[in-house]
Amino acid sequence: MANSQEHTVKAFDQDIGQLRGLISQMGGLAESAIAEAMVALQRGDAVLAARIAADDKKIDAMEAEVERTAVRIIALRAPMADDLREVIAALKIANVIERIGDYAKNIARRVPQLESDHRIEPISILPAMGRMAAAMVHDALNAFAARNPQGALAVCESDNALDDFYDSIFRTLVTYMVENPKTIGQCAHLLFVAKNLERIGDHATNVAEMVYFAATGERLVEREKGVD
Amino acid sequence: MANSQEHTVKAFDQDIGQLRGLISQMGGLAESAIAEAMVALQRGDAVLAARIAADDKKIDAMEAEVERTAVRIIALRAPMADDLREVIAALKIANVIERIGDYAKNIARRVPQLESDHRIEPISILPAMGRMAAAMVHDALNAFAARNPQGALAVCESDNALDDFYDSIFRTLVTYMVENPKTIGQCAHLLFVAKNLERIGDHATNVAEMVYFAATGERLVEREKGVD
Repeated sequence: MANSQEHTVKAFDQDIGQLRGLISQMGGLAESAIAEAMVALQRGDAVLAARIAADDKKIDAMEAEVERTAVRIIALRAPMADDLREVIAALKIANVIERIGDYAKNIARRVPQLESDHRIEPISILPAMGRMAAAMVHDALNAFAARNPQGALAVCESDNALDDFYDSIFRTLVTYMVENPKTIGQCAHLLFVAKNLERIGDHATNVAEMVYFAATGERLVEREKGVD
Repeated sequence: MANSQEHTVKAFDQDIGQLRGLISQMGGLAESAIAEAMVALQRGDAVLAARIAADDKKIDAMEAEVERTAVRIIALRAPMADDLREVIAALKIANVIERIGDYAKNIARRVPQLESDHRIEPISILPAMGRMAAAMVHDALNAFAARNPQGALAVCESDNALDDFYDSIFRTLVTYMVENPKTIGQCAHLLFVAKNLERIGDHATNVAEMVYFAATGERLVEREKGVD
């Protein structure tokens, strides 16, 4: 009995390890999608942009695999209490990462729409914001992999800096549009790109909040996040 | 044995019925939040807008209740195959509705930012788009409640009309900004409002696709949806 139970425990740990491995891989793909989207944006590289959009299907497929794996674990192991909650948390985190991938894809999709004879200057502000957002995703996933509540806390805190960055870019873009009405169409797309990056930070924060709760049992006071 | 099994089945049906009831309630709240957000926007009613944002907490709380209920069902009944998939689908649909509520809240949050001595004209285009988006949410939840694949299909089809509506509003707003540079800041907020409504349609479509799959076992060809 003790043995069979031990055996079950081991099997569950292997299953959950597989689930966590899939999530780390998804996170890596999402992180590089953000970085590449910023490169495509800066260079006006429509070919790279198209590849990023196509690669997002890999992230979607991995989310589906996480779900199948989770369903299999639940059906096979009938995990109780904490174990079951960990499986459900993995499902939710995979869903958030899939959305982060969608934001990167959406940024890439705007690259062709920004094509124009003269490259508008405000594009040059966005890569720094992109790096900040990608770093939050990276750190949130590290905190997840290491079950590190302090790392998770740091991600939540850095979200304030990203929000401030967004606000200043919003103001900069509006001012630029007023002074350069011909660029309003392009700048409108940049407003959405900046908002996508701000939302990526919110989602990285959601992951960090789940990691913190899983590690400490305490909920961080839910910061007000916008949407889109 | 037959009896005890019958008993289990009954108990599961009651549990899943409770889950579906919660989701229908969430959908009703989300639907009215969208309608009220459009009223607040049109009237510039910051008080109503604040109430909508506050009421969103109810939707968030119900999603948490759906999750607790689902975890309890899984732990208690150890549902197999289709039953387990139905519980997981309920979790996902509740998550989508929670996000629809967030979009309505986000629209409400922009109302105070639109305050100005003169109301900008393009606001008048948005309520019609809001009604279209709210109707899609309504129809998707009806299809879910009735397990009606045809109704689900109709929702997916109407999303194309909503996307076209968004594109025309985007062009209208950009043109208006070019002609009225003083309103660029306000119009930028309206661009996000229109995008939020377009995203609500995408999420209603996601629900409809899950309902269709659950009812027919066939996946609808995933339409390309944007984000934000």
